[in-house]
Amino acid sequence: MKRIALLGSTGSIGTQALDIIGRNPGRFSVEALVCGSRIDDLAAQIEKFRPRLAAVAREEDAKKLAERFPGLDVYWGEEGLITAATCDCDIVFNSLMGMRGLAPTYAAVLEGKTIALANKETLVAGGDLIMRTAAEKGVSILPVDSEHSAIFQCIQGNEGNPVKRIILTASGGPFRGYSRQQLEEVTLEQALKHPKWNMGRKITIDSATLMNKGLEVIEAKWLFGVRPDQIQVVVHPQSIVHSGVEFMDTSVITQMGLPDMRIPISYALEYPGRCVNDFDSLDFFSTASQLTFEKPDMDTFKCIGFAYRALEEGGTLAAAMNGANEVLVQQFLEKKIKFTDIQDTLEKIMDTHENSHDMSIENILEADRFAREKTMDILKK
Amino acid sequence: MKRIALLGSTGSIGTQALDIIGRNPGRFSVEALVCGSRIDDLAAQIEKFRPRLAAVAREEDAKKLAERFPGLDVYWGEEGLITAATCDCDIVFNSLMGMRGLAPTYAAVLEGKTIALANKETLVAGGDLIMRTAAEKGVSILPVDSEHSAIFQCIQGNEGNPVKRIILTASGGPFRGYSRQQLEEVTLEQALKHPKWNMGRKITIDSATLMNKGLEVIEAKWLFGVRPDQIQVVVHPQSIVHSGVEFMDTSVITQMGLPDMRIPISYALEYPGRCVNDFDSLDFFSTASQLTFEKPDMDTFKCIGFAYRALEEGGTLAAAMNGANEVLVQQFLEKKIKFTDIQDTLEKIMDTHENSHDMSIENILEADRFAREKTMDILKK
Repeated sequence: MKRIALLGSTGSIGTQALDIIGRNPGRFSVEALVCGSRIDDLAAQIEKFRPRLAAVAREEDAKKLAERFPGLDVYWGEEGLITAATCDCDIVFNSLMGMRGLAPTYAAVLEGKTIALANKETLVAGGDLIMRTAAEKGVSILPVDSEHSAIFQCIQGNEGNPVKRIILTASGGPFRGYSRQQLEEVTLEQALKHPKWNMGRKITIDSATLMNKGLEVIEAKWLFGVRPDQIQVVVHPQSIVHSGVEFMDTSVITQMGLPDMRIPISYALEYPGRCVNDFDSLDFFSTASQLTFEKPDMDTFKCIGFAYRALEEGGTLAAAMNGANEVLVQQFLEKKIKFTDIQDTLEKIMDTHENSHDMSIENILEADRFAREKTMDILKK
Repeated sequence: MKRIALLGSTGSIGTQALDIIGRNPGRFSVEALVCGSRIDDLAAQIEKFRPRLAAVAREEDAKKLAERFPGLDVYWGEEGLITAATCDCDIVFNSLMGMRGLAPTYAAVLEGKTIALANKETLVAGGDLIMRTAAEKGVSILPVDSEHSAIFQCIQGNEGNPVKRIILTASGGPFRGYSRQQLEEVTLEQALKHPKWNMGRKITIDSATLMNKGLEVIEAKWLFGVRPDQIQVVVHPQSIVHSGVEFMDTSVITQMGLPDMRIPISYALEYPGRCVNDFDSLDFFSTASQLTFEKPDMDTFKCIGFAYRALEEGGTLAAAMNGANEVLVQQFLEKKIKFTDIQDTLEKIMDTHENSHDMSIENILEADRFAREKTMDILKK
């Protein structure tokens, strides 16, 4: 029985992870559940999965939960998060959203825990630190993102076989084929309608700007130890091929499946095994009968280019880019800025960031904080 | 340095295997070269690759070679074939054509040699015997066929993860979409023009009748230990996806590449490593930008159905089907019968075969011999 600490249990990925755990009785035990403020959802999860430990954002919520569940250890705040991430367990499943995810991943790696990683910011901002520390501690980082899970599945059994190219697929988002002018006029409602995946709001907007693919390029670099020019972004509107790998013999291995996050989630949980999922099989005579691939329009959608630039320049630029992007997406979600303001403002941040190559966790968090402040300053002007 | 005995060195697969060996100096040594009657080609190969041993079909050819290459051990006939297959080497690479390939594979397995297998008949006729013996001797059978190599690549790193479904792709051949009536009128010249692969004449005709895919269904069953109903034939005219595997979690892994047999050949030779091939990479923005999949027309093209039937009934039926098919293809190549006579005559053989479940090599060879005779009898009527 694998013992799981689940960080971000009430979000889209967290609830799907619990769905998989619930479908596989006797395979997993839930040791810790962590969420921000969705206390009612968390209480229902505690009822069902009976963890030993829970953590929430605010002290008053922690008190309420402690009263309701007398045997449960309840923590709160940043410290509660770290307590949960370092509790006695086999896998820390990190599906927290945003930069909050970095510190608990780091703490868990230092404690030698296996990480199932759905939190992008951990690697985007802290890739250098996290991967270096994981190597020192002999810790496995198991990707949960559908693309990185695909790549990870494709390299299995190829120990010692170097990767020639990573083929990172992208749906292209709801605005594929749009001109700059068309992009200027898109609304929040349009941006929130992803053609293929049902996800949280932040990542849905990132998918529309293609920043999500940019963040994934950075994650892929860190997870698989390749050079940026070995990562090729390929637009694949059907979202059936979740990514692939070319080896030095020119053989390409890809992973396919219906767009259901529970497949990569179950792989990270059961790795190196695989769960028996009773989902529909991929049908090559209907859903998967036509698969198309095309170049991303990196002139109109600038965010992928920002990510390659952040990798090339290194240092804290990726952390700054990511922090600024979080602020900009939030502003767009609140209808305070236009869709194209996201990439235009990001470009200013990229151009003016004072890069630092001190990759300590404190300095990374500082670069993030500073970029957020500066972004708000630019928007106020 | 891996020491290779290459059976069938002057054929299409054999020469491509030597191409790979030549491109990777210091990785492989050629211990034995075996061919039928293309003595001049063989002599050139001996000059270049300097084997210790050679074998040919006829005694007089063996004598000529022995005179020309004084230090070389030259053998001939069936015995020569077995001598080569059991010589001191690491891999017996069997690219012989037809039933001739079965006995040397069996002899090599008994000697505990790793087999790189391009000879279909070995498994079609003798799958039960060969796989049982290989398991007893702890021998690896490495597939060379592009489809089976694809499947083999896809299951790497999945030890202990059962296969749910094998997706066996088929180009559909030159007559995809033809009606029975259209099929009646096709010529030898049309049948020899395969849309995607450049192969030998026998396999090109088998690709046109789809018998080739039927033979591959049988091979897949033996190589990967699945039930026939777990093997799904999927027509994929672009021949980019060479096959794939669905696991129990509904994740599908596929192998792709340009249609170049040197990729699977190099994988079998270097397994579990991979060669550094300087071939063109698969381009998802041109050659591979559109991949389509469809159901095979198993009513018009009956041969795939024969193969499933042979698997279901078991015994020597597959050997008889295969033997009859070899005769029929040869007759068609000599323009003595029509294209549709191949499947129509095969159906008669399937219907009248007296099945035997004694799977000794003698009985398999006898079923093959008898089916050939009977086929000629039917054609004479």
